[in-house]
Amino acid sequence: MSNRGVLIVLSGPSGVGKGTVRQAIFENYENDFEFSISMTTRGKRPGEVEGKDYFYSSREEFEELIAQDGFLEYAEYVDNLYGTPLKYVEDTLASGRDVFLEIEVQGAKQVQKKMPEGIFVFLVPPNFKELEDRLVHRGSESHELVQQRLSKAVDELRQIRYYDYVVVNDKVSNASRKVKNIIESEHLKVSRNISDFETFIKEME
Amino acid sequence: MSNRGVLIVLSGPSGVGKGTVRQAIFENYENDFEFSISMTTRGKRPGEVEGKDYFYSSREEFEELIAQDGFLEYAEYVDNLYGTPLKYVEDTLASGRDVFLEIEVQGAKQVQKKMPEGIFVFLVPPNFKELEDRLVHRGSESHELVQQRLSKAVDELRQIRYYDYVVVNDKVSNASRKVKNIIESEHLKVSRNISDFETFIKEME
Repeated sequence: MSNRGVLIVLSGPSGVGKGTVRQAIFENYENDFEFSISMTTRGKRPGEVEGKDYFYSSREEFEELIAQDGFLEYAEYVDNLYGTPLKYVEDTLASGRDVFLEIEVQGAKQVQKKMPEGIFVFLVPPNFKELEDRLVHRGSESHELVQQRLSKAVDELRQIRYYDYVVVNDKVSNASRKVKNIIESEHLKVSRNISDFETFIKEME
Repeated sequence: MSNRGVLIVLSGPSGVGKGTVRQAIFENYENDFEFSISMTTRGKRPGEVEGKDYFYSSREEFEELIAQDGFLEYAEYVDNLYGTPLKYVEDTLASGRDVFLEIEVQGAKQVQKKMPEGIFVFLVPPNFKELEDRLVHRGSESHELVQQRLSKAVDELRQIRYYDYVVVNDKVSNASRKVKNIIESEHLKVSRNISDFETFIKEME
């Protein structure tokens, strides 16, 4: 079917394992979607490939694109800008292919404003204890820093109400299978296929 | 989770293979749902079991239940009444279990009015030719009767716009897997789980 592709946004609190779930989906399933490539102002690292790992740009170019409203979402981390170029996403969706975005809660919020028709999947830890453990064991940070992270995680969890689906990351294999099912089911929505069937019904009359 | 169960309605034009797909779902998957049992005024046949195949009732009792608005849907076929008792469905959903209904398009229309929160899945043939073949090869009926059936099928296909999902019955194994996925994904909707997560977030604060 030549319908428009679907934008899938996988997000969730820091430490929940978004990256691992995304990787499992890309490694274990036959996918008909593109992983969205971000643009960044940080320098290219050895082994990275332009247009595969990132689109590299100068800060000037990046800021010009921001001014032109050219990002689906963007953020600054450690003095570098990272963003999802809107044109790349738009072109891919228009060609009938899905776009898969795995991003932080803040970025997802921006996407919801620009493309509310996307499918927003929120990944959650099986319980708070586990999230705490993951955040604590990340490094040998101070108690204060860990507390800050936890309170940020609670704030992020509150965003769940703005999402379409919630997937518990109890096991990566379960979580990735569920996300994959959600994508497949969304493609079966009548609203995404109605034009095909109107043609079909016309042929029959 | 102790949420309310989900009502799943599988329908589609006559001859599309609803019964076969339903059977495959019940035979090949671990299901957490109840197949809705109809009430009927037709006599019990040898081997049938009350409360398993049907709930048997007199016409009088059945009509009284209609008057009390006690059916989710009902219809008359060959002088016998068949219907889905509302109380049975309500009780099962309230207990947290899903109810699976496989019914004709006319019946599904009645269900949509009474329980619009249900998941309505429309099964379609891979193409018109195949539906025609299935309807033609059902028996040695007259050309006229076959034409009547086809025109009825077109009318039924038009109902697709009132459904949530469309599944092409190209192969029973594909179609049943897709319906199963839809049910699983619907359970992951944030709207069906938000109360659990509100408790979870409260615990964390």
